[in-house]
Amino acid sequence: MAKSDTRPANWRKMEIITAAAECFMERGYHATSVDDVAARLNCTKGRIYHHYRSKTELFFDVHREGMDLLFQAQDAIEVTGLDPRDRLIAMLRAHALAMLEHHTFENVVAQGVQVHRFDQTSASERATMKELIASRDVFEDRFKDVLEAAIAAGLVPDMDVSIAVKTLLGGLQWSIFWYRPKKRDSAKDRRALADRMVAPLLSGLGLSAE
Amino acid sequence: MAKSDTRPANWRKMEIITAAAECFMERGYHATSVDDVAARLNCTKGRIYHHYRSKTELFFDVHREGMDLLFQAQDAIEVTGLDPRDRLIAMLRAHALAMLEHHTFENVVAQGVQVHRFDQTSASERATMKELIASRDVFEDRFKDVLEAAIAAGLVPDMDVSIAVKTLLGGLQWSIFWYRPKKRDSAKDRRALADRMVAPLLSGLGLSAE
Repeated sequence: MAKSDTRPANWRKMEIITAAAECFMERGYHATSVDDVAARLNCTKGRIYHHYRSKTELFFDVHREGMDLLFQAQDAIEVTGLDPRDRLIAMLRAHALAMLEHHTFENVVAQGVQVHRFDQTSASERATMKELIASRDVFEDRFKDVLEAAIAAGLVPDMDVSIAVKTLLGGLQWSIFWYRPKKRDSAKDRRALADRMVAPLLSGLGLSAE
Repeated sequence: MAKSDTRPANWRKMEIITAAAECFMERGYHATSVDDVAARLNCTKGRIYHHYRSKTELFFDVHREGMDLLFQAQDAIEVTGLDPRDRLIAMLRAHALAMLEHHTFENVVAQGVQVHRFDQTSASERATMKELIASRDVFEDRFKDVLEAAIAAGLVPDMDVSIAVKTLLGGLQWSIFWYRPKKRDSAKDRRALADRMVAPLLSGLGLSAE
């Protein structure tokens, strides 16, 4: 797959995309230049162009890394043996935590599709956009599958699973707007916050519109 | 209050901030210029500068209008006589619908705080930012009050109401990333979609982490 060609294969690329993620988060895709990323790394533009042909390529790699981090968080949880209900809870918690831990990259992932929604793009950019959208769909499908299983098992009332997953994940992802990572926060603090985010999405509200 | 000085008092200003909202949504605050807004309106920059001294002032007015629209949606619902549980449901539904109906303005509201998070700003800009953040806090407080009342009445389990409100509203607000307004959508279609968004936030999931 062409996909792996531009993956950060070494720490040098990782250093570049981390700096790029910070720049894109702070000023947005359109207002960020390769010069800005170079300035942040205190290096020459040449060093960046050695790895990336364009700002767009760099942006796409930041987005890819952000999606990878979300997938890794899901892959790391032990769900075998859990019923769909407990699986969904574990998945939502892992997602909430990943959003907090990778705040900068996930900010850029959120910009991702928005950025190219209105742009004229080249054929190769459109192909990459398609790849990134497909990857987000695969991610959402994992949650949809479990939600559907929970509905089928009578654990959850019937609902529009597609809109439900967008809304539930969106609730956790909204933390890109209000969460501010603090150096003194421990992994335990972040886990506690993640659980407080997930709580109202579970039976917390105990509400029903019927 | 200085606040009202720059409110869109007439259709001319409303026309300008609507065009500005579209520009900010499409390319973000930093990459949008007053020229872009003028080009969209097919007018001179002078006409915009007649009403707004700077891009920042224009951005703030778009943000204000976006917040006003959210408040108006809340003010329009009839909640007297409802218990906190039903009041919360009505408020979440009205908010979901407002997010869909004012998609462009609410996109800019979401950018709002983010945009100035990393910027050097003038004293007057900081004052306006403070006003906008205060307005968002007032908005969230309405939901917090009702959620607290619902908890006090035993209708909802105890939870961190601040994080809960951010997460619940965030779930609905995330629609700025995936919803695409279509001309053929009727008000009824949007109401149906808003209800499908709110459903999983109510007892829909029937889950509990305990």
